[in-house]
Order: sequence, then C-alpha cells, then structure tokens
Amino acid sequence: MGYTKKFRIEPDSKVKLDTFDPSEKGGYADSNAAENEIAHHVANLDELQALLYADGRYSLLIVLQGLDGAGKDGTIRHVFNGVNPQGTKVQAFKVPTPEEAAHDFLWRAHKATPGKGEIVIFNRSHYEDVLVVRVHDLVPKKVWSKRYKEIRAFERNLSEGGTVILKFFLNISYEEQLDRFRKRLDDPQRQWKISESDYTERKYWNDYQSAYEEALAETSTDYAPWFVIPSNHKWFRNLAISSIIVNSLRDLHMKVPAPRVDLDDIRRKYHGAEETEKKVDASGKADAD
Amino acid sequence: MGYTKKFRIEPDSKVKLDTFDPSEKGGYADSNAAENEIAHHVANLDELQALLYADGRYSLLIVLQGLDGAGKDGTIRHVFNGVNPQGTKVQAFKVPTPEEAAHDFLWRAHKATPGKGEIVIFNRSHYEDVLVVRVHDLVPKKVWSKRYKEIRAFERNLSEGGTVILKFFLNISYEEQLDRFRKRLDDPQRQWKISESDYTERKYWNDYQSAYEEALAETSTDYAPWFVIPSNHKWFRNLAISSIIVNSLRDLHMKVPAPRVDLDDIRRKYHGAEETEKKVDASGKADAD
Repeated sequence: MGYTKKFRIEPDSKVKLDTFDPSEKGGYADSNAAENEIAHHVANLDELQALLYADGRYSLLIVLQGLDGAGKDGTIRHVFNGVNPQGTKVQAFKVPTPEEAAHDFLWRAHKATPGKGEIVIFNRSHYEDVLVVRVHDLVPKKVWSKRYKEIRAFERNLSEGGTVILKFFLNISYEEQLDRFRKRLDDPQRQWKISESDYTERKYWNDYQSAYEEALAETSTDYAPWFVIPSNHKWFRNLAISSIIVNSLRDLHMKVPAPRVDLDDIRRKYHGAEETEKKVDASGKADAD
Repeated sequence: MGYTKKFRIEPDSKVKLDTFDPSEKGGYADSNAAENEIAHHVANLDELQALLYADGRYSLLIVLQGLDGAGKDGTIRHVFNGVNPQGTKVQAFKVPTPEEAAHDFLWRAHKATPGKGEIVIFNRSHYEDVLVVRVHDLVPKKVWSKRYKEIRAFERNLSEGGTVILKFFLNISYEEQLDRFRKRLDDPQRQWKISESDYTERKYWNDYQSAYEEALAETSTDYAPWFVIPSNHKWFRNLAISSIIVNSLRDLHMKVPAPRVDLDDIRRKYHGAEETEKKVDASGKADAD
C-alpha cells in the first residue's frame, strides 16, 4: 500500500530514469496474486467517485504520460472501466488543431479540466509541449524551457480550486516497447494502427528519457506529484496506479452532504401516514410533530 | 431479440402512452433469467465500440429521456459500465447556463454530439425544450411547437453525417415513481439528493405524459427512432436497451481497416530476420522479397 510514497518523485529532486526498474513487481509473483487487490481498488474507486460527486468540494485530474506502447489506453480500460461513465471523462491530446495551435499551450488543457465532483483523465497532456516538442525541436529551447514554471502555476491554480492532480509516467523498457509492437503486428484487430513512424521514433528514445527526466524533476510538486510507475508488467502498473488513486481520494475524507429537506416531513406529506408509523416502530420512539 | 421492432415508435404514428405497459418483462420470469443475456450484450457493446472506433465511419448518439426516477442514471451505469471510457462520453443537460440560454435551443446539443468513432449518451437532451418548457410554460406554444421540425432537421443532418441516433423514453408508472422516491428516502447515501420539488412535480404527471406523446409522435423518424422502454423493472429496461443498441451497431456491418503499412516489410526491418523466419514456418511458404 506504500506505492504512493514509493513511486512519487519528491519536489526539487533529480530524476535518473535508469535507476527505476520498469519490471518491478512489488513482491508479487505474478498477476494472479495481485488480481483480487486490483479488483478491490477498482470497486473502491467506483464508490469514491460517487462520493466525490456527492461531496462536491473536489475534482480529480489524472495525467497519463508514457512512450508509445507504455499502456496509457490499457490503464484507462482496466483502472477506470468499473467507474460510472457519467462522472468520468477521458481527454486525449493529439496534434493540436489550428484553433488549439493559435492559443498558448495550456489553453486546451485548461478547457478540459474537471469540474467539482468530476474525474478527468488526460491521455497525454500539456506535458507533450515539453516532450515531443523538445525532442523534435518544434519550438526553440527558449520557449519550451519557460513552460515548466507555467505548468507549475497552472497546476497550483487548479489545486487551489479543489482539483486533486495525480500524474503518472508509465515507465517501460526499450525492449518491452519493441515486444509490444511485435504483438500488435501479429494481432489482426490492431494491425491497422501501425505506422512506420512508431518504429523510427525509437531512435529518439534517449532524448525522450532526458526530456521526461527534466519534466518530472521540474514539475513534481506537493500539489501535483509525478509517479514513475513500473509498467513492463501491465497488471503491476494497474495495481500501483489504482492503489495510488484510491489512497489519494481516501485522504480527502469526503462525506455525503446532509439532506436539504426534513425527511420525516416528506414521509408524512407524500408517502402517507403509515410510512411515518413504520419509522416510529423502527426507531422505538415517536417523532414529535 | 425483436425489441428493436417491438418498442420502436413508427414514423407518423399516434402515441398513447397508456397503451404501453411499463411493467412488461418480455416473457422473462425475473432478473435472474435475463442476467446472462444482459452481460452478453454489455460485452458485445464493448467490442462494437472498439470496432466503431476502428471503422471510423460512424458515430453513435444515445438519447435518454424519462421522468425523475425513470432510471436514466441507472441505465448509463448498467449498460455502459463495461465500455471503454475512452470512446464514450456522457453529456447531462441541466438548466441552461446563461451562455446556453443566449443561443438557440439546439446549440448546446450540437456542441456535444459524437465525432466519428465515438459514443455520446445524452442524459436528458434537446427534448427538454419541448417537455419541461411546455409543461411549465417557460416559452409560449408558438415557440415550442415549431421545435419539432427543427429537431427533425437537426437529427437528419447528424444522421446524414454518419451518426446513428437511438432515443429511449424510459416508461415508468406513477406508482413506481413514488416507490423509487420512498426507497431513496430510506437510503442515507442518496437522501441528500431529495428536494420537495421532486414531489410537487408529480402534479404535472399527465401534462408530461401528453408532452411526451406529442414529442415521440412528432420526432420518431427512420433516421432517429424513439423507443418506449418498459422501465418499471430495471433489469428488463437494461436488457431491452442493450439489445437494441447492439443490434443497431451490428446492422452497420463495420470492419477493421486494412493495415496502412506492409507488415512483412515492418517485420523484416524492425523485428529482425528471425521474426520473418517464424512467419515463414507458420504459414508454410516463403515470403517473397
């Protein structure tokens, strides 16, 4: 249960990704051993989402980042599949539209943030603007290097407005990525998604690692921490992420608000006298009029 | 499986809601008997949503309407809970914001319609503008009475753009509504949602029935049919709705697109010769260069 602490990047710390083991399994032998625990977290998350909505003071923003094949889609499917779709939105960030590109880089992210009681999952995010943009030199260093502090200010503002922010970097190895690409190559349902650029992008692996290291170090804060999640094993990734989310929501000590009406009054007026009688019997003392 | 035909309102027909039995169970004794079938539909819906995304030619818009307690939220939870949250959005329609109210009544609905490959569920919808608005005289008859043809034109346009539209009226009885309110009154997790207006609104029951009858008759079309779903039994409601959605998606005969790359070329270039060899062994004949 100590995943929150274990995988969190402390503010103002250096990050060296090669000191993190992407194959870590947290002491579990295999997925079978962890399965019950994952199911338990997923069920808890469903209840906590209902409570988040009822409580009405907070919102939850999940940021998922990782290289192709790291498992962002799979995390959404497995961790959030049991949650009521009514309170949960997924926002995917692709190549900016002309309208998005005409605004500052945080504009489209801000539009998509959760309202009170809501959960929003960013599948990729405003972090692409210090990652792909840097690796491929899409904007000059003097532009992207200023973005860390803008991101911190943006996330601090969200946090002060009641948004809980949890950011997950899905950490896989270079070999694991190729292995996942090979599985997709053999899967007729997914072959249509393959493009050669998925492979040529692997040339930039080390550049991406450096870009992530700096981004994680610069923007992991108390109000919006980053977690480096070992993701070579999908089930462990799901276990760690669901555990961290559930614990963070629990820490809010949310509660269901008190009724806004006099329940006995409603019982008497609309559900007939016998309802009130039943209540009297059950509680053992009479309701004064 | 004939629910699509059975519960559909045919275009240009009269609708008398008291000829529909809200307690219908479609020949099933109880929920146990239907449970496997519901689970089967929900699993199919998950696969069909992935296919909808892959195929990329269609989108799906579900409209849920019904009086308080009819089960709109419950339908979303039970029918769509197994679907990947990434491809499914729920849009709830509440009292219009000032910005929404400053536009025509279809503006906020149009903004929320699904893109290609997406599913959007309207929890209430643009139909409120010919329902609550009419019952409570919020706009004059000469305004709302013109809206049926605007709705038809709007939905026809969506349909011509590739959107499959399925509209469900969740039909419960006057007594069932009160019974559901009473259950909520006894449930500490839901008491906070109760307001006296839920009860006083029951005075308008017959006005709502008339407003629904006219809306259903005026706007059930080949391209955007209404279904009157017997909803006193929640499990039968879920069974009928999931069945109708699955059948409608099946009728599209969607398919996964062909790969955009030469798979063997990718195998050779990025996965090493031994990968190609394996393939040769498995297929029993050599891949020509």
